[in-house]
Amino acid sequence: MKIFSSSLGPIYSGDVRDGLKKVIDDHQPLSVFIICDENTARCCVPKIEYLVDNPRIIVTKSGEQNKNLETCKYIWSALIEKGADRDSIILNVGGGVVCDMGGFAAACFQRGIRFGHIPTTLLSMSDASIGGKLGVDYKGFKNYIGLIQNPSFIWIDPSFLETLPPLEITSGMAEIVKHAIIGSQPLWDIVSGVKTINELNWAEIFEENIAVKVKIVESDLREQGLRKVLNFGHTIGHALESFYLASRNPVTHGQCVAIGMLTESRIAVSMGLLNSADFESITQVISRLLSPEVVSLPGVEMVLPWIGGDKKKSKGRVGFSLPDKIGSCGWDIPVEENAIIESFEWVRAQVKSVPFR
Amino acid sequence: MKIFSSSLGPIYSGDVRDGLKKVIDDHQPLSVFIICDENTARCCVPKIEYLVDNPRIIVTKSGEQNKNLETCKYIWSALIEKGADRDSIILNVGGGVVCDMGGFAAACFQRGIRFGHIPTTLLSMSDASIGGKLGVDYKGFKNYIGLIQNPSFIWIDPSFLETLPPLEITSGMAEIVKHAIIGSQPLWDIVSGVKTINELNWAEIFEENIAVKVKIVESDLREQGLRKVLNFGHTIGHALESFYLASRNPVTHGQCVAIGMLTESRIAVSMGLLNSADFESITQVISRLLSPEVVSLPGVEMVLPWIGGDKKKSKGRVGFSLPDKIGSCGWDIPVEENAIIESFEWVRAQVKSVPFR
Repeated sequence: MKIFSSSLGPIYSGDVRDGLKKVIDDHQPLSVFIICDENTARCCVPKIEYLVDNPRIIVTKSGEQNKNLETCKYIWSALIEKGADRDSIILNVGGGVVCDMGGFAAACFQRGIRFGHIPTTLLSMSDASIGGKLGVDYKGFKNYIGLIQNPSFIWIDPSFLETLPPLEITSGMAEIVKHAIIGSQPLWDIVSGVKTINELNWAEIFEENIAVKVKIVESDLREQGLRKVLNFGHTIGHALESFYLASRNPVTHGQCVAIGMLTESRIAVSMGLLNSADFESITQVISRLLSPEVVSLPGVEMVLPWIGGDKKKSKGRVGFSLPDKIGSCGWDIPVEENAIIESFEWVRAQVKSVPFR
Repeated sequence: MKIFSSSLGPIYSGDVRDGLKKVIDDHQPLSVFIICDENTARCCVPKIEYLVDNPRIIVTKSGEQNKNLETCKYIWSALIEKGADRDSIILNVGGGVVCDMGGFAAACFQRGIRFGHIPTTLLSMSDASIGGKLGVDYKGFKNYIGLIQNPSFIWIDPSFLETLPPLEITSGMAEIVKHAIIGSQPLWDIVSGVKTINELNWAEIFEENIAVKVKIVESDLREQGLRKVLNFGHTIGHALESFYLASRNPVTHGQCVAIGMLTESRIAVSMGLLNSADFESITQVISRLLSPEVVSLPGVEMVLPWIGGDKKKSKGRVGFSLPDKIGSCGWDIPVEENAIIESFEWVRAQVKSVPFR
């Protein structure tokens, strides 16, 4: 077991059997609750529940479509029924949906009880569980009701990755590649040094990945400035995700972010911010590790209306986060619509010609 | 206009026309929202809205029975519809219900947008608006869903008191008397120096009252220790309030707290914590300013089951906050049931013989 300490709270990594019980006991809870979904109840909770005396388990419905206030009310009612109080602790065992929603439910129950995240997907281990963003969707708006509050601890156990389908791994990998591009040459050296995901050493990846995410979030918890670099790939990525969702043809978050990073890197080149050698490396790594070619992209005119529909708008305009070299990224950069169109269509042409590169 | 600065944020007092516009403008909001209820929409908002360019007003239903997630959803939908974003600011114009609920709605909207409280009742000016407690009731449990977060500012304008019925004044006065007993000899000198509420100078009262409440909250925002002294009068008071609510015979919060303070002071005497001279002064001030004699009390056996039903329970037991002299109070004090019974029945005998003293 390894500990990464920061102002965001301790992040442990290793097998849950190697110390999670002590971490929980150190909080001296009078009762321990586990929030999970049907999938993690089956695949992950069995490895955790026996570490806890009398665990009280709350199983929610899985999927983004259940990340809402109705499910929160189900959780709050279950907490009351099962006797949660200020001396309880909640363990959120699952992916981004469970961590975001379970954390929000805990942070608002009796004005806040303690909670820890035990992420079980690559996306939540590499990104969603770190940084304190909690919340649920509201009337189709992603994460519109929520908070920023760090958990009492995070425990990352890579063995949970063994139960995941390949598409889930690719999806989480997109955020790791993003973290490398925007803020970490060492992480970039790791991800650009392999030909396939299977060659990666997760323990090594997580160590660098946690370091870069924590460094960015610590400097700007409430996303007033630097934290916006984490939106690299997400302005276009979220627009695509919204388009696919509306057309009832959902594509994973990671796939959308992969296309988003390609498009936004190309925009950065067209604006003279990024040199073509770095752009070439970025496209190669994305092509090798994130399989962007499996996505069938719509015409740019279908995507443009969705840009800026999320919470990244400030002072009425959409700002892009664009890399200026590997390991460095700017934010709040205004981009001409023509540059978006040209870059997206360039990516679309590449993706259409299978294989991508 | 006066400013009281602390780590809880600035608290202004004075006429809203004397500087509120500048305080709002200093936050450079792109849009200003006012959350109020039907009563404050009529009595208070007209004095405020003309200070704001294009105010967007959200009117909620009044009363504790509407302090719930349904009303929050109404507020969140209205915020979306009227175009609120991270550059907006929300002004909560009303009593404790509006401030608690409007603050919670703001703190959770898009993971938190800015808000200020403009309390309009004596209870919210003297107590509810100060200290960062936000939230709503859930399934009959008071404030079970909420947060602790301080507003960007509080503005206390005593002129709003002119529109209040006398019972509302008495209700808010109970918290001021409580603050004096638990933590402020100067405030006690003021409240014990008058024969009726009408003799009080609100500006003078607020100055001392804010100072004591802020001092207590600052030292223990999350109520781990000292902040529990604010529960003086509330262990019995909340039990009574719950009893009356369940018997559909609602009595104001302040009246319940007045009876609660009498009972708990008597308990403190019976345990040898409080001397009888201080107890005598406490009963006199409560009798003069809080009209406890108008309450018709049930037998103690009707009240006992409700004790500890709120969030004050910790490590499985109910701890009382009891004064040891005027201006000083302990907390987490275990009390024998016999002492509760004897003291409550003593108060009940006093109250039944109208006038109280």
